Amino acid sequence: MSSRRSLPPPRSSYKYWRLLTTRWSDNDIYGHVNNAAYYTYIDSVVNAYLLEERVLGISQGSIVGLVVESHCEFFDAIAYPCLVELGLRVQNIGRTSVLYDVGIFAEDQEQVSAVGGFTHVFVDRATRKPVTIPLQARSSLKKLLE
Amino acid sequence: MSSRRSLPPPRSSYKYWRLLTTRWSDNDIYGHVNNAAYYTYIDSVVNAYLLEERVLGISQGSIVGLVVESHCEFFDAIAYPCLVELGLRVQNIGRTSVLYDVGIFAEDQEQVSAVGGFTHVFVDRATRKPVTIPLQARSSLKKLLE
Amino acid sequence: MSSRRSLPPPRSSYKYWRLLTTRWSDNDIYGHVNNAAYYTYIDSVVNAYLLEERVLGISQGSIVGLVVESHCEFFDAIAYPCLVELGLRVQNIGRTSVLYDVGIFAEDQEQVSAVGGFTHVFVDRATRKPVTIPLQARSSLKKLLE
Amino acid sequence: MSSRRSLPPPRSSYKYWRLLTTRWSDNDIYGHVNNAAYYTYIDSVVNAYLLEERVLGISQGSIVGLVVESHCEFFDAIAYPCLVELGLRVQNIGRTSVLYDVGIFAEDQEQVSAVGGFTHVFVDRATRKPVTIPLQARSSLKKLLE
Repeated sequence: MSSRRSLPPPRSSYKYWRLLTTRWSDNDIYGHVNNAAYYTYIDSVVNAYLLEERVLGISQGSIVGLVVESHCEFFDAIAYPCLVELGLRVQNIGRTSVLYDVGIFAEDQEQVSAVGGFTHVFVDRATRKPVTIPLQARSSLKKLLE
Repeated sequence: MSSRRSLPPPRSSYKYWRLLTTRWSDNDIYGHVNNAAYYTYIDSVVNAYLLEERVLGISQGSIVGLVVESHCEFFDAIAYPCLVELGLRVQNIGRTSVLYDVGIFAEDQEQVSAVGGFTHVFVDRATRKPVTIPLQARSSLKKLLE
Repeated sequence: MSSRRSLPPPRSSYKYWRLLTTRWSDNDIYGHVNNAAYYTYIDSVVNAYLLEERVLGISQGSIVGLVVESHCEFFDAIAYPCLVELGLRVQNIGRTSVLYDVGIFAEDQEQVSAVGGFTHVFVDRATRKPVTIPLQARSSLKKLLE
Repeated sequence: MSSRRSLPPPRSSYKYWRLLTTRWSDNDIYGHVNNAAYYTYIDSVVNAYLLEERVLGISQGSIVGLVVESHCEFFDAIAYPCLVELGLRVQNIGRTSVLYDVGIFAEDQEQVSAVGGFTHVFVDRATRKPVTIPLQARSSLKKLLE
């Protein structure tokens, strides 16, 4: 089953960076960050970018991003209390959806600890029907394309 | 990008079931369970089975299961305070690893809300080197094979 | 510092009950439910009652409950995968606020594992100014008074 | 019930500081950090200090800190994506226990958003019986006394 493993991307692949502080509660009984916690990291860096670029508003704006799939590969354990650096890039932009890729690095480490991401479908806040990604949002997302 | 979507499996695909209570904190600002929370559901049903079958011990036993990848597809939103039914099956058993598949159903719903899972590599607790899955554990896992 | 400890209340003190399923991620490195997770339990039983009784609506209704303080005393550890029974009562109802008390019991245990609660101030959803608790809500809350 | 509110302590009361990054999943449906999440912040700053000072080891050391009570007062809402500054002080040191107090400040704000803390009882890792706080640990804790 190891054949599905892809080569982890280098730091230089990522366009946007955020620091994240791990928490005591992230560690599970084995003393490492639990796999579910990584998804809270991934969410946080993607939404930070979208909010900064005003692609999405937290509680306003007519468009909302729905997560239709998410995934993560784990290469090396990280553990509280280490600091984590999150790199973000966009791997694909469709008409109504976008695929984000996040590299999760322990502080100052060259080698990635985990690589994950998710697909956002942009929908109308009220009807939840997919909408074409608006031009300005598309332009913000394109900045993170490889 | 929708072409990657597979047909969601029916309830009858799953062999082992557990009920789960959603929590207020699972809902995010959109009023639905946040994608990261689903992974805490998936973890909980898999480990419940492994503990029941004594495949793993929480704080003892020489073998530990490391999550090397996880993934989830979201079909329909669920929200606190609904109850969730978690179905578990095993999709593949290798020499040292196993792939779990979990169907996440809102209570009494025929159609799955989300389908996710992860790959466990069995490792020695001390050295963290992969080990052949012991016979008894393999037999427990096989019971959940499709 | 132990003098501040009060005698834990018996099961019969609680008026409303909900079952809760613990999760793998609730356990911390010591193999017991982390103290922060208990607050997600407390939140969940209180809001379940408020939603059932239509005291609050999750995303509508002109009134919102703001938590102004919360607290918990821990008597005995609980750990995933055990089931938890949550008992709820109301200890005090003021003009604009209410104090909830929650008993957290491991399944079928007579003795409480933890006792916690919080104070809700009812505020206008838009202005966030305190409002007098409406009559119908007050009546629902009174049912849980000792 | 407001009479129990104490005046929040100023920044200068706190002796040890850590930055914390909020997460998307910290916000609840009201768009603010959920009360339970504050306890993960409090845990993180206390344990960071204890690990730095080698008062506790995450997975080794014969002494473990058990949380016997925790509490928090909320003065002003914070919300992802803001940064949080956590100030720590020690309010009381007993023979076997210590009371921590944590001030939670939105970045660069003079006024505290929340004040919380908990009581640690130091116990033997194996027997879980309370032990006298060792001299070196006591000396580390005393540095944070007001």
